[in-house]
Amino acid sequence: MKRAFVRARRPEHKQQRREEILAAARDLAMASGVRNVSLGAVAEAVGLAKSNIMRYFGTREEIYLILAADEWHQWAAAVTARLEAPSDDAAAPVTTRLEASSDHVVAALAETLADRPLLCDILSQTATTLEHNVSVEAARTFKRAILAVIADLGSQVARTTGLTVGEGTELVSVATAFAGVLYPIANPSPTLAELYAQDPVIAATCPDFLPTLSRALKALAAGLPTLRED
Amino acid sequence: MKRAFVRARRPEHKQQRREEILAAARDLAMASGVRNVSLGAVAEAVGLAKSNIMRYFGTREEIYLILAADEWHQWAAAVTARLEAPSDDAAAPVTTRLEASSDHVVAALAETLADRPLLCDILSQTATTLEHNVSVEAARTFKRAILAVIADLGSQVARTTGLTVGEGTELVSVATAFAGVLYPIANPSPTLAELYAQDPVIAATCPDFLPTLSRALKALAAGLPTLRED
Repeated sequence: MKRAFVRARRPEHKQQRREEILAAARDLAMASGVRNVSLGAVAEAVGLAKSNIMRYFGTREEIYLILAADEWHQWAAAVTARLEAPSDDAAAPVTTRLEASSDHVVAALAETLADRPLLCDILSQTATTLEHNVSVEAARTFKRAILAVIADLGSQVARTTGLTVGEGTELVSVATAFAGVLYPIANPSPTLAELYAQDPVIAATCPDFLPTLSRALKALAAGLPTLRED
Repeated sequence: MKRAFVRARRPEHKQQRREEILAAARDLAMASGVRNVSLGAVAEAVGLAKSNIMRYFGTREEIYLILAADEWHQWAAAVTARLEAPSDDAAAPVTTRLEASSDHVVAALAETLADRPLLCDILSQTATTLEHNVSVEAARTFKRAILAVIADLGSQVARTTGLTVGEGTELVSVATAFAGVLYPIANPSPTLAELYAQDPVIAATCPDFLPTLSRALKALAAGLPTLRED
């Protein structure tokens, strides 16, 4: 006799199954990249039918938007912890201090992104893929979550540097947007990896993630105040 | 009797068929976005079997990499034309002139990108999708083409502004990278369009393509020289 399918009926069981599905989708994405994970592969990993997964999440993209919000929150916590730690130059004169504080903020934003390949992978897929095949409610929940994170980090950046809240928010937004562009470029496809192995001149043009992101953010942090209207 | 399939045997016929396929792929992408065009749809549009298309192009991604190189070249020509036209402030004092020339360059880069939705759509898909399912040769041809464009435009930007060739190249690279991020955000999916219609607070956070790109590039152009080593 076939083993009967055991439906999760009690709320705590449902919650547990939800978390198993999310954990499986996360592991698969870490192993082979968000773009290569199908709903079928997630179903297989948790031992459920695809139709059953869809009792918990509408689409594979909804699963990844939930993981995305989760990753954004963890990233924000890491940035906050870095910004609350005193920078090395607290005793320096004011102008040097402002410059140093801006470098401190850029390092906090860029290094915590570099530490999070799954977040960067998700950032590279969000607008082109993940925000497409989802319900309006799922999109709303996600957008509210990340807008709150960006606003909070933007204020923190402004408190730490000479930037306004608006400029701090721009710096945070560009940091995540640019991380999303750089990640797939700095982590090339198998085809490009093969090309780079054959052709060192082309390989030399492939940017490194952290230095490229840091430099762009430093330039932006220095340049934004020059655009203020008098 | 079924119409026999007519194989393109002569070189000029092959070239013509190639161009028909590229034109169909371009039209379909303009109408519904690169991500939504399958090889099957291209085949149907030109009246060939999918297997037949693959006698000309290995994959749908190879078709779009060829269109990408073509779009990059047309964009470069448009930027060059804009940079060769005198800016309005040729008679201003030197510092104002440098600032004005930098604004002129940013406007040339940003406005020509805003004029090219297909290029921006392709830019949003290049590293995450198009560079994956192609042959090493197709990737090499594409990379060589765009690296030449970036180097050429970088030098032109340096000649026109106070930026070094390296900084000019960075400005051009970031312009195209950031255009690729902004395009899908500024042109939201049907789900997000529905969300924005329901929720004006969230809608207000959706960036406009041209002003957002221009501002980031202006800040970058102003900030890059501050990072020079003494």
